[in-house]
Amino acid sequence: MTYTPTDYLPYDFANRRHIGPSPEEMEAMLQTVGAPSLDALIDETLPAGIRQAEPLEFGKPKSESELLWHMQQVAKQNTVLTSLIGQGYYGTVTPPAIQRNILENPAWYTAYTPYQPEISQGRLEALLNYQTMISDLTGLEIANASLLDEATACAEAMTMAQRVAKSKAPAFFVDENCHPQNINVIRTRAEPLGIEVIVRDPDTLDATAVFGAIFQYPGTHGHVRDFTAQMAALHAENAVGIVTADPLALCLLKEPGAMGADIAVGSTQRFGVPVGYGGPHAAYMATKQAYARSMPGRIVGVSVDAHGNRAYRLSLQTREQHIRREKATSNVCTAQALLAVMAGFYAVFHGPEGLKAIAQRIHRKTVRLARGLEDAGFKVEPDAFFDTITVEVGALQRGVMQAAVNEGINLRRVGKTKVGIAMDERCRPATIRQVWRAFGIQDRDTDLTADYRMPDAMIRQTSYLTHPVFHMNRAETEMMRYMRRLADRDLALDRAMIPLGSCTMKLNAAAEMMPISWPEFALLHPYCPKDQAQGYTHMIEDLSAKLCDITGYAAISMQPNSGAQGEYAGLLTIARWQKARGEGHRNVCLIPVSAHGTNPASAQMVGWKVVVVKSADNGDIDLDDFRAKAELHAENLAGCMITYPSTHGVFEETVKEVCDITHAHGGQVYIDGANMNAMVGLSRPGDLGGDVSHLNLHKTFCIPHGGGGPGMGPIGVKEHLIEHLPGDPNTGEGAVAAAAYGSPSLLPISWAYCLMMGGAGLTQATRVAILNANYMAERLSGAFEVLYRGKSGRVAHECILDTRPFAEHGITVDDIAKRLVDCGFHAPTMSWPVTGTLMIEPTESETKAELDRFCDAMLAIRAEIDMVASGEMDPVNNPLKNAPHTVEDLVGDWDRPYTREQGCFPPGAFRVDKYWPPVNRVDNVYGDRNLLCTCPPLEAYAEAAE
Amino acid sequence: MTYTPTDYLPYDFANRRHIGPSPEEMEAMLQTVGAPSLDALIDETLPAGIRQAEPLEFGKPKSESELLWHMQQVAKQNTVLTSLIGQGYYGTVTPPAIQRNILENPAWYTAYTPYQPEISQGRLEALLNYQTMISDLTGLEIANASLLDEATACAEAMTMAQRVAKSKAPAFFVDENCHPQNINVIRTRAEPLGIEVIVRDPDTLDATAVFGAIFQYPGTHGHVRDFTAQMAALHAENAVGIVTADPLALCLLKEPGAMGADIAVGSTQRFGVPVGYGGPHAAYMATKQAYARSMPGRIVGVSVDAHGNRAYRLSLQTREQHIRREKATSNVCTAQALLAVMAGFYAVFHGPEGLKAIAQRIHRKTVRLARGLEDAGFKVEPDAFFDTITVEVGALQRGVMQAAVNEGINLRRVGKTKVGIAMDERCRPATIRQVWRAFGIQDRDTDLTADYRMPDAMIRQTSYLTHPVFHMNRAETEMMRYMRRLADRDLALDRAMIPLGSCTMKLNAAAEMMPISWPEFALLHPYCPKDQAQGYTHMIEDLSAKLCDITGYAAISMQPNSGAQGEYAGLLTIARWQKARGEGHRNVCLIPVSAHGTNPASAQMVGWKVVVVKSADNGDIDLDDFRAKAELHAENLAGCMITYPSTHGVFEETVKEVCDITHAHGGQVYIDGANMNAMVGLSRPGDLGGDVSHLNLHKTFCIPHGGGGPGMGPIGVKEHLIEHLPGDPNTGEGAVAAAAYGSPSLLPISWAYCLMMGGAGLTQATRVAILNANYMAERLSGAFEVLYRGKSGRVAHECILDTRPFAEHGITVDDIAKRLVDCGFHAPTMSWPVTGTLMIEPTESETKAELDRFCDAMLAIRAEIDMVASGEMDPVNNPLKNAPHTVEDLVGDWDRPYTREQGCFPPGAFRVDKYWPPVNRVDNVYGDRNLLCTCPPLEAYAEAAE
Repeated sequence: MTYTPTDYLPYDFANRRHIGPSPEEMEAMLQTVGAPSLDALIDETLPAGIRQAEPLEFGKPKSESELLWHMQQVAKQNTVLTSLIGQGYYGTVTPPAIQRNILENPAWYTAYTPYQPEISQGRLEALLNYQTMISDLTGLEIANASLLDEATACAEAMTMAQRVAKSKAPAFFVDENCHPQNINVIRTRAEPLGIEVIVRDPDTLDATAVFGAIFQYPGTHGHVRDFTAQMAALHAENAVGIVTADPLALCLLKEPGAMGADIAVGSTQRFGVPVGYGGPHAAYMATKQAYARSMPGRIVGVSVDAHGNRAYRLSLQTREQHIRREKATSNVCTAQALLAVMAGFYAVFHGPEGLKAIAQRIHRKTVRLARGLEDAGFKVEPDAFFDTITVEVGALQRGVMQAAVNEGINLRRVGKTKVGIAMDERCRPATIRQVWRAFGIQDRDTDLTADYRMPDAMIRQTSYLTHPVFHMNRAETEMMRYMRRLADRDLALDRAMIPLGSCTMKLNAAAEMMPISWPEFALLHPYCPKDQAQGYTHMIEDLSAKLCDITGYAAISMQPNSGAQGEYAGLLTIARWQKARGEGHRNVCLIPVSAHGTNPASAQMVGWKVVVVKSADNGDIDLDDFRAKAELHAENLAGCMITYPSTHGVFEETVKEVCDITHAHGGQVYIDGANMNAMVGLSRPGDLGGDVSHLNLHKTFCIPHGGGGPGMGPIGVKEHLIEHLPGDPNTGEGAVAAAAYGSPSLLPISWAYCLMMGGAGLTQATRVAILNANYMAERLSGAFEVLYRGKSGRVAHECILDTRPFAEHGITVDDIAKRLVDCGFHAPTMSWPVTGTLMIEPTESETKAELDRFCDAMLAIRAEIDMVASGEMDPVNNPLKNAPHTVEDLVGDWDRPYTREQGCFPPGAFRVDKYWPPVNRVDNVYGDRNLLCTCPPLEAYAEAAE
Repeated sequence: MTYTPTDYLPYDFANRRHIGPSPEEMEAMLQTVGAPSLDALIDETLPAGIRQAEPLEFGKPKSESELLWHMQQVAKQNTVLTSLIGQGYYGTVTPPAIQRNILENPAWYTAYTPYQPEISQGRLEALLNYQTMISDLTGLEIANASLLDEATACAEAMTMAQRVAKSKAPAFFVDENCHPQNINVIRTRAEPLGIEVIVRDPDTLDATAVFGAIFQYPGTHGHVRDFTAQMAALHAENAVGIVTADPLALCLLKEPGAMGADIAVGSTQRFGVPVGYGGPHAAYMATKQAYARSMPGRIVGVSVDAHGNRAYRLSLQTREQHIRREKATSNVCTAQALLAVMAGFYAVFHGPEGLKAIAQRIHRKTVRLARGLEDAGFKVEPDAFFDTITVEVGALQRGVMQAAVNEGINLRRVGKTKVGIAMDERCRPATIRQVWRAFGIQDRDTDLTADYRMPDAMIRQTSYLTHPVFHMNRAETEMMRYMRRLADRDLALDRAMIPLGSCTMKLNAAAEMMPISWPEFALLHPYCPKDQAQGYTHMIEDLSAKLCDITGYAAISMQPNSGAQGEYAGLLTIARWQKARGEGHRNVCLIPVSAHGTNPASAQMVGWKVVVVKSADNGDIDLDDFRAKAELHAENLAGCMITYPSTHGVFEETVKEVCDITHAHGGQVYIDGANMNAMVGLSRPGDLGGDVSHLNLHKTFCIPHGGGGPGMGPIGVKEHLIEHLPGDPNTGEGAVAAAAYGSPSLLPISWAYCLMMGGAGLTQATRVAILNANYMAERLSGAFEVLYRGKSGRVAHECILDTRPFAEHGITVDDIAKRLVDCGFHAPTMSWPVTGTLMIEPTESETKAELDRFCDAMLAIRAEIDMVASGEMDPVNNPLKNAPHTVEDLVGDWDRPYTREQGCFPPGAFRVDKYWPPVNRVDNVYGDRNLLCTCPPLEAYAEAAE
């Protein structure tokens, strides 16, 4: 019999798994859209002039199992040694229960930033735990919900100090004992802002000359100093004192608050988050209550819901969503939520006793290690330390370092004659013996009693983690259930689509996620010898080459670890280029009014002046205004920042003209990559005239949002800019992040995506993303006005629905968003880029059925609005205003002019599988007015017993 | 400063993670219990005479990270080659989404058997999908929800055939092309039942001589035969025809139903479940509707709930819970639910098109492989095949096998001159080239077109997997959400305690679970060369040694893959020993009336006559009756089966006497290990006088229940029985399971548990399990009578509450169980071992808070009962009778004489985190009367759109 193979390809990840609509569904959707074919729709949507010449070609795409096999081969090219390099990165033990139930659980990693508090109470509680932990450990009153890494946190602290200091002195003092990468990133940040950076010994501080100062605690070479005197001196001059502190050391050592510090920053990496060759981990920032409103980053706070019950929310979030644009000095947007959640759970898991015991054990091992070295005649400094010592070895440095490697240990090279050793939670007696052997010490017994070698005066006198959550029963059963309860309170991608315009919440496939847990990717130190990281090098080179192909750029820097940081890094690169060609005075940046809020903030950070360009009526850049302003500022034009397709969701026809005008007047073009999901495989920013773009790997390339981070914002640049890219944070200068490749342990995700999709798959994803958006626009367009379309009437990969007409009936965009919660959905992006609108981005990963479920919900909401408008429904006591409805509503007295059924089961809502929000509508104003950002007493734990 | 270390041990897995109550909680509990110390409580509970002499000592317990490191070293001792051995085990690709969201998700793996349907709708749906898949693929009307492995399924099919056949012929025919392990296990099972097994070529079948016959399809060496003629011949003689079929082959080949088969069995391993050195995987059984009620194993069926809505449940479950005891011929209890769920999802994931494509690809590769061999002059048989071929190589056999190993491939040794090759889903063109090279064929191109090499007449003519669930959109997004929705409908250990007496639902720690996903454990073929499995060998030896220490036995057989199979294997061992010493006539087994239902069933399976021994009033074995019956049957006494501590939850003082009496009369003592969780470290069955015991590793040693399997029931025996243990299924005889070590890929879990707990930790776990049970007994004893206590008034690790006094008020044990669902709990074991009671086993892993939550719920239920009794509550329309309450109740009209609040939030129930059952009380009678065991039309999928 002749073989008639089925044409079904079961291992076709792109078409069977990643892309939502099936071929049959796409047919039906095209009919609705009124396009004869997907090709035709794309032709209508993308102007011919911007299409890329050649299709993407990455060879045969891999199946999931081929991918995992391939990743294993690459992983094996990394050599996992025990790194005792320290310098801000330490071995840590991720509790398996946290790894499995948080890091590897889609309920946590696919969640979005908790802007919608009603569906985010679980991760808000987890982040509040984290903030409470930071506040307790640092001895400061308020902490934020994480920053990108310690080095950028230091830089943020500097600019925050400048904002809050009454001193107007021009300089910033940096302790020479800060980690080199911290100093590097501070310098990078300071330079365009005109801040003079003084790097010196803390004892030489002249407080009159500075608006602020930062001290590392313990110092990078292990010194444990008290900065109380420096703080007093600074305060006397109205300057601000900052301590960058290891939170584990703070379990034993006097806390920054007790020294009088105004701000504390640091990294929580060693709270259970693997080093990962540099990231991601959560950096922290804490400050005094008085400075709370000046602190960058997100802050979780406590508020109340419509029934007066306690509810968590992001405080002061308007700072972020409507970031202070031209006046901003921080562009922080993405945080490291997932890692902060892990670090917070690590503290819950161990409690103060456990953390203290871990810190003590590390210290004791360090004391033993030091004593062995001293007994053998080595000079160890400092006398007093926590976990890090530095050993003078003279000409033996190279030999000792190599002997250590032969023992499976990486030490730190310090100067030309010393080596540094930092102990950590993973160190065992055998580790100490390995180090000793590298120093030629054989057969010494490690089992000595060991005194503290910290100054008495530096021992911490205050308690911490006193809140009940840190005193929960620590049985894994209890921990597992706590994690599950929190996860269940939230709505993430594992339950419903999250149609957030500009945020690209697509599938984060299990196969893509698996390699990040592998030790070969998780356990490398960012400053380990390069030859131990060959797997990473190979991956980064291959992924970079693919991203260059996709964008049309010549090189990629993986260093920026968020989109906003990519913008900043990109503009810095332009500024350096302008300076190098003798045009360093150029400082004007044209930015359309519709830009992401981070754009002007980033421009501000490189010292540029933002000139806003108008929009035309159709939402496009007003070309005449653009040209006029470019001409007006021709002398000083540094560049422009545009988003493509525009934040209005349209492929503007004039993009090349905008680029040409900019170039003609000496500027460089920054194309924001936020909307790359509408371009991959179809159009390349480099071809359009862009000189730099960042890519949000956490949007377009499948890194999950993690409930508000991690992210990765690598930048692509044209050839002429390559030499001006950020330098190595450890050995070079001009770095924007603490690690050379930002958060490299995330890169397996994006690489896996590219390898499994192939060029054609990536292109098809873009096409289907556009189809999905147009399908939704079509289905909703009768009921809602779709703002902004291209010439042919098509939208790109997202669309904007106008809700302003409903204002006259008292219905706001918020009411619609909250009513969507009743339907089991996360709201679309609200009031951005246009106030009073909803921006919907379905991505290619959603199926027709899910799109229909959402459209049904929206149409039903429109019908409810009509009933309010017609008076058929009460103007105040109606399902829209009372949304979201909770079980508490159902179980209580129902004094409403509509039924429970109407309230709780609107179209779209699942019946058996309905998602119930744990709180009613959260009161934003109350939360901002009554800023409470640490855990309140947890009566909740007693609730079951009531 | 002097170092004052904290005494807190953060890495102490036993006391900080596995054991629920904290030291402070234990103090409080001891006060409630009225014991001065835990030592004192244990002394009161366990008679001095049964305590073990020496404490358990396993060296220093490992922390979680030490454990994982150690496991990695052991894993590396296994060599993962590509095994093309076939013989029932095939490479398969586990879709990562299934691995992560099912296999590695505690919501699935910690669930219990779905006896309580209201909290099990998710896994019941998943199992119904599985049954539908089996029914479709085999072409038979009804399938069960899995059996242990293909070999035991063959044996079960044989005994079922004997039950249902009208023919009373004494013999059973076995196709000589059956896999050797199937023949082996059939022979083992047949012998004690007096069934003659005829192993011959199918063409020689004499249907008049047999009550049934079994045929392998495709045959073990690859032959694809049509058994239609044999079926007709069998039916003509009123005999039963069985086909054991590869379900993947059935995607291309004529199905057993179309041949007229009465029963089909087989393994679904290759549906996405890793080989795992032999297991666990789900075997299947399907049959005609007429035989449904004779089919062994669990069957999921469709019924209705109290509101008439569709609801799933285990059909005919009384067969199992009250297994037909003395009259049973099957002791099947544990199934392979988790693996069946995975296999079912594999089919949902691929759909019929995908499965067909996978089967076609495998076939095509096999054709190419064969053609290459034929072109090189090798004789390949059979002419027609699916995925397996056999090659004549004469004297080269050893050389080809070794050359293949050098290429990274395991082939099958067939006879003395042949090798077998079975292709699978993981094979790639490179695999074919590797095999060819082993045969000396170089550089041949694999990219040939390939015809079918299956007989035209054997091509399947019917469609399969036509149900909508197998035609879902197959995007991973949709699949992930479907898995999440099902998981959310269920209540498992990750949300609440499951206090099931005799089932020991303890923590399944994340660290214990992680290694089972590693390829070094997951990918080994059970019949691979021993030298490739050194890691397994080391683990099995070390775990066996520890289990010997724990039990007081001399050796362990890991072969039985369920508790009931352990019983059977243990009794077989005794029977063989009796026979070997010339006492083969002994066939009487004394079993107390309180025994597990599986006990008499197992005795029946080895051909023994069960003599029931009475209980004394206090629930203990009636020693006088025991002695009298032992004396009466002294001539024929084979042995006795007792459970210790007894199924009444008491450490009987007389256990040694029972053993002595048995021995004195020539019998052997089988001590059922179901209650080992009350003994580990405190008392050893071997010391008490036991000759054999099985251990439920899925109870006492942390293998999760998986929603009703997998399990592991290894047996320990005294020295004299070692030589009579089950033989190797592949190369020996007397096997009870298909693989030598049963389900060895589960063993890392139990081993990890032992290594992290250490001897003292395991002992402490036992002590705390006893404390927890006594604490609950104490808290509940005012409201409920606690049946059976030891002399000092203590219970062992579980306790029995009498609910029979409430019958006079119309309140049944069922009402209480369902009301507990409202409180967020799985009910205790119902009506066993005493009708009208609840048996509660908290295990050591539950915290005091959770025990209190449960006790609060039970006390509140008692108060409700009192209100019914006093007339304060309606005798019918009350919260107990209406339980469980659903959201549908809340949202609808509430015509009840109690409030919504009372109905839905009884004490114990979480408020925000309340678990809502998806259905109201399920109608058991309806379900059994209207047996429907495949998926009904799934309107549910349209529900969201309604």
